[in-house]
Amino acid sequence: MKYCSYCSTELVIKIPEGDNRERYVCPKCGAIHYQNPKIIVGTIPVCENKILLCKRGIEPQYGKWTIPAGFLELGEKVEEGAIRETFEEANAKVKILGLQTVYSIPKIGQVYLLFLAELIDKHYSPGSETLETILFPFEELPWDEIAFSAVKFALEKYIEDIKFDRHPTTHIGFYSKKI
Amino acid sequence: MKYCSYCSTELVIKIPEGDNRERYVCPKCGAIHYQNPKIIVGTIPVCENKILLCKRGIEPQYGKWTIPAGFLELGEKVEEGAIRETFEEANAKVKILGLQTVYSIPKIGQVYLLFLAELIDKHYSPGSETLETILFPFEELPWDEIAFSAVKFALEKYIEDIKFDRHPTTHIGFYSKKI
Repeated sequence: MKYCSYCSTELVIKIPEGDNRERYVCPKCGAIHYQNPKIIVGTIPVCENKILLCKRGIEPQYGKWTIPAGFLELGEKVEEGAIRETFEEANAKVKILGLQTVYSIPKIGQVYLLFLAELIDKHYSPGSETLETILFPFEELPWDEIAFSAVKFALEKYIEDIKFDRHPTTHIGFYSKKI
Repeated sequence: MKYCSYCSTELVIKIPEGDNRERYVCPKCGAIHYQNPKIIVGTIPVCENKILLCKRGIEPQYGKWTIPAGFLELGEKVEEGAIRETFEEANAKVKILGLQTVYSIPKIGQVYLLFLAELIDKHYSPGSETLETILFPFEELPWDEIAFSAVKFALEKYIEDIKFDRHPTTHIGFYSKKI
């Protein structure tokens, strides 16, 4: 960030009055350009003891497996975003059952909100950024080829909750990764 | 948003290749300026059947009561941000017990993540943006003077959970407000 997005003046870094952190501030129009973490929303789509995973067709982690997830858009509720991502990446319609994981990655300013969801029908197919979609039985998940730490955490927690007969959405997984 | 924050060129609005939404795009350097929802983190600080509330000393909602909460900063875990806000607004140290409410406000691009927390000691006092801090007994909360819908939702849910002997953090409140 170098220029003011309101008036194009070169920004300075300083602590605004009443604040306690350095911000990008415009010396001409006075605008303070805050930078905030982004929310990633997604689902664990479940159907008959199987989980729908997507093989990534884009970088990062091209060719690795993930659950459908992506950045929350302006104007969306978190659960709407998770449903949209599931449709965009796997052409799958889901019903949200509950929040399953909250996972912060402070160093890159990301917070994952991952929901347990149930496949509404058995239609699914790769979206434009996905190479392949497979319903994996619980005991055959591709653990060595999972794309992201947040996804691995959520899947491990889900499988463990099932094993110990805990309700996966009322024992939210909570994790923060310093990377 | 009018100018590119990387190169100061005037932005255009268009759908980038491979995307399905209009974005601010720089016609010179090609940067895509995404706009995403922001996360507000906070706590319901509880101690001996009382909740610590803050009387707001800034707009919006000057003079109304709220729980300590504010924008998550870059480099923070969600629970760290909630603890920091509680200290900044009420000089109170808390231990996080669990996530209690997720509340989306799509129209203004905000997602609240509110945590149940326990006061570590009984020291608290108004921070620089707070007029007054009071430990309110559960039955004496100032319902008609609560600052924000998300806070009212979280407090109502907490009181109801306590009444029905439900664990407030394993039955997360889930709400989205179209305003």
